[in-house]
Amino acid sequence: MRQPFRRELSNLIERGRDRQLRLAVTGLSQAGKTAFLTSLINQLRHAGVEAQLDMLPAAREGRLLGAQRLNQPDLGVPRFPYDPGMAALRETPPRWPAPTRGISELRLQLRYRPAQQGWLSPDIAHLTLDLFDYPGEWLLDLPLLQHDFYSWSQAQPLHTGDQRRALFSEWLAEVETLDPAAEADEAQLASLAEAYAQGLRRAKQAGFSNLQPGRFLLPGELDGAPVLQFFPLPQLSMSKEALDALPPNSLYATLAARFRYYQQQVVRPFYRDHFRRFDRQIVLVDVLGALNAGPERFEDLSQALGQLMQSFDYGKRSLLTRLFAPRIDKLAIAATKADHVTPDQHGHVVQLLEALLAEPLKDLRFANVPVKALSLAAIRATEAREVMHNGKRSPALRGTTLEGEDVLVYPGDVPPRLPTHDFWHQQGFDFPSFRPMDTPSDALAHIRMDAVIDWLIGDKLV
Amino acid sequence: MRQPFRRELSNLIERGRDRQLRLAVTGLSQAGKTAFLTSLINQLRHAGVEAQLDMLPAAREGRLLGAQRLNQPDLGVPRFPYDPGMAALRETPPRWPAPTRGISELRLQLRYRPAQQGWLSPDIAHLTLDLFDYPGEWLLDLPLLQHDFYSWSQAQPLHTGDQRRALFSEWLAEVETLDPAAEADEAQLASLAEAYAQGLRRAKQAGFSNLQPGRFLLPGELDGAPVLQFFPLPQLSMSKEALDALPPNSLYATLAARFRYYQQQVVRPFYRDHFRRFDRQIVLVDVLGALNAGPERFEDLSQALGQLMQSFDYGKRSLLTRLFAPRIDKLAIAATKADHVTPDQHGHVVQLLEALLAEPLKDLRFANVPVKALSLAAIRATEAREVMHNGKRSPALRGTTLEGEDVLVYPGDVPPRLPTHDFWHQQGFDFPSFRPMDTPSDALAHIRMDAVIDWLIGDKLV
Repeated sequence: MRQPFRRELSNLIERGRDRQLRLAVTGLSQAGKTAFLTSLINQLRHAGVEAQLDMLPAAREGRLLGAQRLNQPDLGVPRFPYDPGMAALRETPPRWPAPTRGISELRLQLRYRPAQQGWLSPDIAHLTLDLFDYPGEWLLDLPLLQHDFYSWSQAQPLHTGDQRRALFSEWLAEVETLDPAAEADEAQLASLAEAYAQGLRRAKQAGFSNLQPGRFLLPGELDGAPVLQFFPLPQLSMSKEALDALPPNSLYATLAARFRYYQQQVVRPFYRDHFRRFDRQIVLVDVLGALNAGPERFEDLSQALGQLMQSFDYGKRSLLTRLFAPRIDKLAIAATKADHVTPDQHGHVVQLLEALLAEPLKDLRFANVPVKALSLAAIRATEAREVMHNGKRSPALRGTTLEGEDVLVYPGDVPPRLPTHDFWHQQGFDFPSFRPMDTPSDALAHIRMDAVIDWLIGDKLV
Repeated sequence: MRQPFRRELSNLIERGRDRQLRLAVTGLSQAGKTAFLTSLINQLRHAGVEAQLDMLPAAREGRLLGAQRLNQPDLGVPRFPYDPGMAALRETPPRWPAPTRGISELRLQLRYRPAQQGWLSPDIAHLTLDLFDYPGEWLLDLPLLQHDFYSWSQAQPLHTGDQRRALFSEWLAEVETLDPAAEADEAQLASLAEAYAQGLRRAKQAGFSNLQPGRFLLPGELDGAPVLQFFPLPQLSMSKEALDALPPNSLYATLAARFRYYQQQVVRPFYRDHFRRFDRQIVLVDVLGALNAGPERFEDLSQALGQLMQSFDYGKRSLLTRLFAPRIDKLAIAATKADHVTPDQHGHVVQLLEALLAEPLKDLRFANVPVKALSLAAIRATEAREVMHNGKRSPALRGTTLEGEDVLVYPGDVPPRLPTHDFWHQQGFDFPSFRPMDTPSDALAHIRMDAVIDWLIGDKLV
């Protein structure tokens, strides 16, 4: 067979194959989404040269030749800020990339040599990778779609936990005096909605995660619009029937109308236009940060993740399947910042993550969605050391705190299962926030990025 | 006839009448939009008590009873920040309200006694007023709809005026070396688009107005999206046919695709969802500021206003009429900041405004759109005084500069027609920027707000 003909034939086969993948990264605020995607792009671009990707067969075997940036297909989606992120990491001293504020996208084309060189396979194959980054907070709004305003009001966790209640105290004091049947007062609604949003912002700052509605925290162009000026009415004393019969200008009907608008114009479009088109997904979890923040925040993270993971529950009866028919065929769940504990603790980190997500993982496995839990550090901020302690060799970390202090620490033991009362009582865990390390090579130093890349796209590089 | 029956009948007639009006305020950056709408709302809320509205018959005759804020109908449009604006004006020292960044809305319900009390007319009538504020820069994008990327590239004023060219020099130097047929390079396009946007921002800061595309200056949630990453290709050496035949991944085709997306997804929705629903419109013009800034900026304002006013040209053959069938039935054009010159100059200000807009005004009158030009100060910042100068009484202004200095000045003579070379040569005009005056009363002090309110809504209050 002549060479040009052979090439044409393989190009034909090539086009028939599934050569495009939409991979999305999410996680709650501070989970490390921007750092992860910056590192992912960086590793793929330097695969085969400087990047350490031994757990990715295509890289280990020298078949992954490189990654080129292409124009992204979605013209209305902001580009993922890879260059600004790398520039921040290369500053003196290095800085973490700026956090995610909304959805962003970047397209890479990977070039690789297929593993098996049959006479019909092409010399060089391509995989187009559309990478997305979006706030996990947006997924917390999915459960809101199965509510009406009445049931949503009842479901809000406003009275659980002293710390949480304290953050909303001003709003709670005012909202409890409201009469659902009274005529809605524009200015009063605006000020109460602002007090509620303020409570959410305070709760976020204090480390809480289970915060609805998600867009109240990142309003963007809807800042000041009535669609973001509603709030739950807890402890309603009237029956649902009586409330539904109130006139359109009543307080209750006004809030309910805004809630419906939020469902239709804010929550649905994200699922319809973006989420349902993702092929694969990684969810990042700052489990160590929550461990650091104490029992109420840890419990809150657990609840928030439970809510968030509903977006990946494709059981036949799930809300999501009924509404949007998504198609994610592979899921990774990763505990980030693994470099903030000593290597001997990494196994425990994964066990703790699986314990934290036990219920959603059970559902996912039942629904036959391939899912893997692991721990990683997208961009290393510490080096593992050993120190002599009471005459024994003990593991430790060397790094630089955000304030610029060089430290050598042992952050503590990570419990391999959900922490008990005793654990919290002993305050057994405390790690500082580190700044990124200086990066002498082009490729960023990491922990297990190669393992996660293999899980997410390795099967497409054979 | 029994009283209840009479009332029912008049309610019926009431409902049949045109009792709702959508009134929009626009103008280029710094024209005074937020101050105008804040004052308009303030005057209507205090009509009949403290507001000085003698030129509005309903107020002069004591028939305008008050204005109440209602919930706005558009849940997705930010609320106009009236309360923050008033709070800024009441600070010590007073501050101007924060400038407009996008569209915003506020609904008022006016209560008034109809002028003629026939037996069928209601005792009290209502008028619902939906007020909108939006950046005039958005209107500068209308002409872009009649272009394709090729003709738009040719139409950009990049080589007219030394100052303007200097602001774009870095971008110009790079863009002139581009090959339209070369494969588009994602990173290069992003960096060139940023250089172009930077030129637009610099030009805006330097006082230029005729800047396209308008959203490059206020990107909002589209910041970083490819739709905002295009730029004109000046001095194209290939024919349009040859350019149109280039492959989709070429530089030219990529920019052209983004230009089309911008037309369809950014420019059109504003006209379709908002603009075409406005009943009446006021365009604010900072003609004195342009006079202050010198000949090139003044000429640029003139061009920008010519472009902007195309949005109100409802001649049968106009682009707008063909695309969107708008329905504005009354237009006001106002020179703002009249309090920045002495009262004897106000006549000249209006004459100058009419000279500046001579062409668009001719078209509007030809198209039979009622239009009125006037000068006003929405929120007074100065007091008129007389001082002795060379033994003669001369007019002067007393006010406080933004830096906090109390001054007594004569800003100069306003030319009653387009300034000549001699005017610019003599540097005949110079006014400081004033801060707002302290407001002891609830109603804001103004110049001719009553006249403009009468023109815009007076016919609905009879």
